[in-house]
Amino acid sequence: MTHKIAILGASGYTGAELVRLIATHPSLSIAALSADRKAGMEMAEVFPHLRHLDLPTLVTIDEIDFSDIDLCFCALPHKTSQEVIAKLLPKTLKIVDLSADFRLRDPEAYKTWYGNDHAALDMQGEAVYGLTEFYRDDIAKARLVAGTGCNAATGQFALRPLIAGGVIDLDDIILDLKVGVSGAGRSLKENLLHAELSEGSNAYAIGGTHRHLGEFDQEFSAISGRSVKVQFTPHLVPMNRGILATVYVKGDAAEIHATLAEAYSDEPFIEVLPFGQAPSTHETRGSNFVHIGVTGDRIEGRAIVIAALDNLTKGSSGQALQNANLMLGLEETEGLMMAPLFP
Amino acid sequence: MTHKIAILGASGYTGAELVRLIATHPSLSIAALSADRKAGMEMAEVFPHLRHLDLPTLVTIDEIDFSDIDLCFCALPHKTSQEVIAKLLPKTLKIVDLSADFRLRDPEAYKTWYGNDHAALDMQGEAVYGLTEFYRDDIAKARLVAGTGCNAATGQFALRPLIAGGVIDLDDIILDLKVGVSGAGRSLKENLLHAELSEGSNAYAIGGTHRHLGEFDQEFSAISGRSVKVQFTPHLVPMNRGILATVYVKGDAAEIHATLAEAYSDEPFIEVLPFGQAPSTHETRGSNFVHIGVTGDRIEGRAIVIAALDNLTKGSSGQALQNANLMLGLEETEGLMMAPLFP
Amino acid sequence: MTHKIAILGASGYTGAELVRLIATHPSLSIAALSADRKAGMEMAEVFPHLRHLDLPTLVTIDEIDFSDIDLCFCALPHKTSQEVIAKLLPKTLKIVDLSADFRLRDPEAYKTWYGNDHAALDMQGEAVYGLTEFYRDDIAKARLVAGTGCNAATGQFALRPLIAGGVIDLDDIILDLKVGVSGAGRSLKENLLHAELSEGSNAYAIGGTHRHLGEFDQEFSAISGRSVKVQFTPHLVPMNRGILATVYVKGDAAEIHATLAEAYSDEPFIEVLPFGQAPSTHETRGSNFVHIGVTGDRIEGRAIVIAALDNLTKGSSGQALQNANLMLGLEETEGLMMAPLFP
Amino acid sequence: MTHKIAILGASGYTGAELVRLIATHPSLSIAALSADRKAGMEMAEVFPHLRHLDLPTLVTIDEIDFSDIDLCFCALPHKTSQEVIAKLLPKTLKIVDLSADFRLRDPEAYKTWYGNDHAALDMQGEAVYGLTEFYRDDIAKARLVAGTGCNAATGQFALRPLIAGGVIDLDDIILDLKVGVSGAGRSLKENLLHAELSEGSNAYAIGGTHRHLGEFDQEFSAISGRSVKVQFTPHLVPMNRGILATVYVKGDAAEIHATLAEAYSDEPFIEVLPFGQAPSTHETRGSNFVHIGVTGDRIEGRAIVIAALDNLTKGSSGQALQNANLMLGLEETEGLMMAPLFP
Repeated sequence: MTHKIAILGASGYTGAELVRLIATHPSLSIAALSADRKAGMEMAEVFPHLRHLDLPTLVTIDEIDFSDIDLCFCALPHKTSQEVIAKLLPKTLKIVDLSADFRLRDPEAYKTWYGNDHAALDMQGEAVYGLTEFYRDDIAKARLVAGTGCNAATGQFALRPLIAGGVIDLDDIILDLKVGVSGAGRSLKENLLHAELSEGSNAYAIGGTHRHLGEFDQEFSAISGRSVKVQFTPHLVPMNRGILATVYVKGDAAEIHATLAEAYSDEPFIEVLPFGQAPSTHETRGSNFVHIGVTGDRIEGRAIVIAALDNLTKGSSGQALQNANLMLGLEETEGLMMAPLFP
Repeated sequence: MTHKIAILGASGYTGAELVRLIATHPSLSIAALSADRKAGMEMAEVFPHLRHLDLPTLVTIDEIDFSDIDLCFCALPHKTSQEVIAKLLPKTLKIVDLSADFRLRDPEAYKTWYGNDHAALDMQGEAVYGLTEFYRDDIAKARLVAGTGCNAATGQFALRPLIAGGVIDLDDIILDLKVGVSGAGRSLKENLLHAELSEGSNAYAIGGTHRHLGEFDQEFSAISGRSVKVQFTPHLVPMNRGILATVYVKGDAAEIHATLAEAYSDEPFIEVLPFGQAPSTHETRGSNFVHIGVTGDRIEGRAIVIAALDNLTKGSSGQALQNANLMLGLEETEGLMMAPLFP
Repeated sequence: MTHKIAILGASGYTGAELVRLIATHPSLSIAALSADRKAGMEMAEVFPHLRHLDLPTLVTIDEIDFSDIDLCFCALPHKTSQEVIAKLLPKTLKIVDLSADFRLRDPEAYKTWYGNDHAALDMQGEAVYGLTEFYRDDIAKARLVAGTGCNAATGQFALRPLIAGGVIDLDDIILDLKVGVSGAGRSLKENLLHAELSEGSNAYAIGGTHRHLGEFDQEFSAISGRSVKVQFTPHLVPMNRGILATVYVKGDAAEIHATLAEAYSDEPFIEVLPFGQAPSTHETRGSNFVHIGVTGDRIEGRAIVIAALDNLTKGSSGQALQNANLMLGLEETEGLMMAPLFP
Repeated sequence: MTHKIAILGASGYTGAELVRLIATHPSLSIAALSADRKAGMEMAEVFPHLRHLDLPTLVTIDEIDFSDIDLCFCALPHKTSQEVIAKLLPKTLKIVDLSADFRLRDPEAYKTWYGNDHAALDMQGEAVYGLTEFYRDDIAKARLVAGTGCNAATGQFALRPLIAGGVIDLDDIILDLKVGVSGAGRSLKENLLHAELSEGSNAYAIGGTHRHLGEFDQEFSAISGRSVKVQFTPHLVPMNRGILATVYVKGDAAEIHATLAEAYSDEPFIEVLPFGQAPSTHETRGSNFVHIGVTGDRIEGRAIVIAALDNLTKGSSGQALQNANLMLGLEETEGLMMAPLFP
């Protein structure tokens, strides 16, 4: 049986990535694609790499007949997404939202990090946080799933079992992230130009200002039952896909490794490397896999946990599809087992 | 039914690409992997991006029991391949060879371009040239198929229908190729280092010295029934995958476009763009697709034909799998319909 | 003695490159910098790599007192430049214009390629074409020098002596250019984003539509005394700086090499490589040098001439400074002998 | 007056960088270049970007007449350098050594980090640590100066004034470095190939195993008068030049910024950015400048100090030339004021 899928915001990178993944998914077919400013165009014009596919023409959201749709991915900008979901989509439609709009359960936290009141407060409570490996059962039953931030996902894969297991100091956690440029989307900014971004590296959103900290705060505090605040500094690196999270923690490195290995032993997408080995974003590109490595330090009682994933796949559209599989009663891994692209 | 596959030379890029593709192929399973110098190692050590797969340990070729194998891919170095195939492999084994060893049917031409006598002259005659779209029927019946050169494939996709159709001047064909670095394999050379190759471009094998010219000569002369010699200059460009062939021809641009569009109208992997549009290697990366565009020039009677593909996929391992599908009686496109990776 | 310099349009790449070069020039000092939309800002805010320099604050053009200026570089957008020069700048001011506005001497040709009537027809005649090595004496006496197109410069370095010497067929010249992205300036376009441009290559302005063809037509026809039309196709390559011009010509390769070697034997910035060697853009990056190589082809009577330079330096701002040196009576090479940056 | 310079090990990246810098240095001339395995070749063959220079032919070290040399740069591999300096060079020759051989004053520390006994123990004591800004006077009087590690230099620029000023917690310092690939030299390793290094990022020498920690230990302990051990994890990033050191410290961010601003207020090559701004390796490429930024964190009492420089220039050959200037009685900045190359 084939489920009919709509993708709103199909002209951005996460929209295109959803199309790429669904193109070879055996149980899903794309029934509608929206892109407000590019309505009327074919996907082959917006993303020529998809020209071999027989896809519906891009339309505006209100042109879509949702009665025919089994599940809708919203790959819309932040803030737009909550408005569309609140006002334009049927209240019974299964939705995976890839924006930041439903990640934070607390309206105050939402307002603090995003600067505005939420336009769909009731749904904010209904939404399930979409980190599949930790919210699997709730996601399977959910109507609305909120895709996580890509940085937030990477950091949580490294840290959640450690916080839950009580094996690290909760007051001294530093995440230094190396982030690929596609995370910034298809936005026209000088610092994203090839001439300015290639061949160099720099930090941004330094000092605790990145919005994904809202997710870390919410999730880590919920796990530990106390307030946990981490340091998190992202760095722009000249790569298109990939996040490498280098996480500095205090605890016993062997215990940390054992805790992660145990926590993820049955996970189809998470690979914990042998102790002392380190992952690379090269080795997860284009796939839904996460690689995690643990190393001790010469200073006793410290460890370095490194997690790598592809921000557009496991960090965003792949995660969304993994969640959609659960919501539709399909095998969680369906259409997601493609190997990384290397070199 | 699952066919058992062996890959010889699994520690190189084309070997790894075969594993990537077969990993999600519904009808093939990998039964043996060889890598002489790395025998005893796991693929996860040689190519960590494949660590999620349950693969056989790397062995030497003579450790493989070929009685159990339905088809063998040889991703060995040139010259080694002919020796292995002649001496070590069963004479009844279906083989797709990715080396240059069986591409040239004429022993003299082989010697001219490769500098040595061929070690398996009898098989040289038996081998079918592996450009699937043009040798489909022979390949389906073949025991030994010779994968084409990646540059040779790209140029032929642009030119074969034009030569066959008699719509271009055969004495004035110039191919200017922009080639991704993975085409050079995993070889340790100064000019392939990131520090030396990134951020710049240069030509190599200039003036008619590149070995893939042997394939152009053989094929174009066979099609036209006369000697055809093209000019061909490859350029190294800082991209890992991809070949862009800019082909300068003399003929009527509209007729050239119509000829290509007609020739490829039923091909699942070849997309001829609307007249005046140009392809990009970005839009074929990681896929088995070929994009071809035709533009006229301000000088009447001239046209520019541009073809783009991924050298490791359609130019090599994807083509090999497409041929294997035919040889095993499977659907030609099986396991090969993944969309390109963009960005 | 120090000459006072103004740079109009200092917030673009060619403006910044002029500042970089003049920073260590012994006889020039920067007295004024304009950038209309960024007036009031410091250069360190617009280009932090220049923060160590003590530079004037950015102003609007009408805030500059030109009575104090010895020479003015106009690094303004096309069309704006002619208006500014015609209306705002003193008629006696020495000007090196880096825009396209004064490159074409024939008003009709200008209108054909640029689509509008020229706003400063009288000056169009006065301007000297700024290809220093070929207009040296005129430039030294000129008040207004028109910097050449960067692609146009590269192609002319390869071809001018060959056309002048009558050693190639004038009816069959093909220029295939590989162009670095900084040539597009600091413009916000999707195809210039790192995510879209890196890791791939494509042609643009195919078929004789690139405006620099106007310069080729003008110059090559003037040299040969007849109409000469070349084919020219630029390709975007993931490198920030550099143009590699692969030029396909018909003629005797040895004679072609000898002609170029002879023509440039005394030129400080032009290196003709030994016969059979090929240049690389890696080897001219950040410098004012041009490297030229000649190779024969297996097809008799054909040759490949390849020229490499840095589009922002020799192709634009370095050329402009070389011309300014002449116009100010300084040594032509002053401040321009820095070696290329490699790796 | 012109001083005569020899460069030993001229066929590596730091050797070529020395030639690049000296090429436009007004008071130095290159009298001898050695490269054992490439003796007899011209520099233009080894590094074609230097082909415009009139340089001596590469020779073996014993072919050089050092009586004629005023100062010698040793850009030889580690361990080779100490042997050459001890056995082949005159005891009175001024030497700037770019290897690791004379950085550690304590023979035991040397043995711990480098694994072998030192071959020139007496000179190890004589050598002055070459971090110019902090050893200026000693360097001016020294015969033998030991160039610092490039990572070690970057970290020290961020931390020395803070440790000296007592404004940070000495027991909780974490350095997360993003390192350009030229730091690995011209070595032929799979992970340095363009195909494997571009488009991704990974950590290496994790957990306190990188040799530059020996320099941090030595210097930071000397400044503070107690043992100081930092955490330091380098990451390979797809850029050719540049080191970005993100340093996590505990202390008052404003005080930290003031301390750095004050310490470097008169330094010609060190730019401390306004509080809250962050540097980028893009903005130091090809230059001898260091950019340093300080930001506070949302967690009180923590700060992030980020330093950026070019590993081949300020991190190695530029530093070496800065030291040579002092040793020869020249202006420290002579030949080193070129602006960074951007884009």
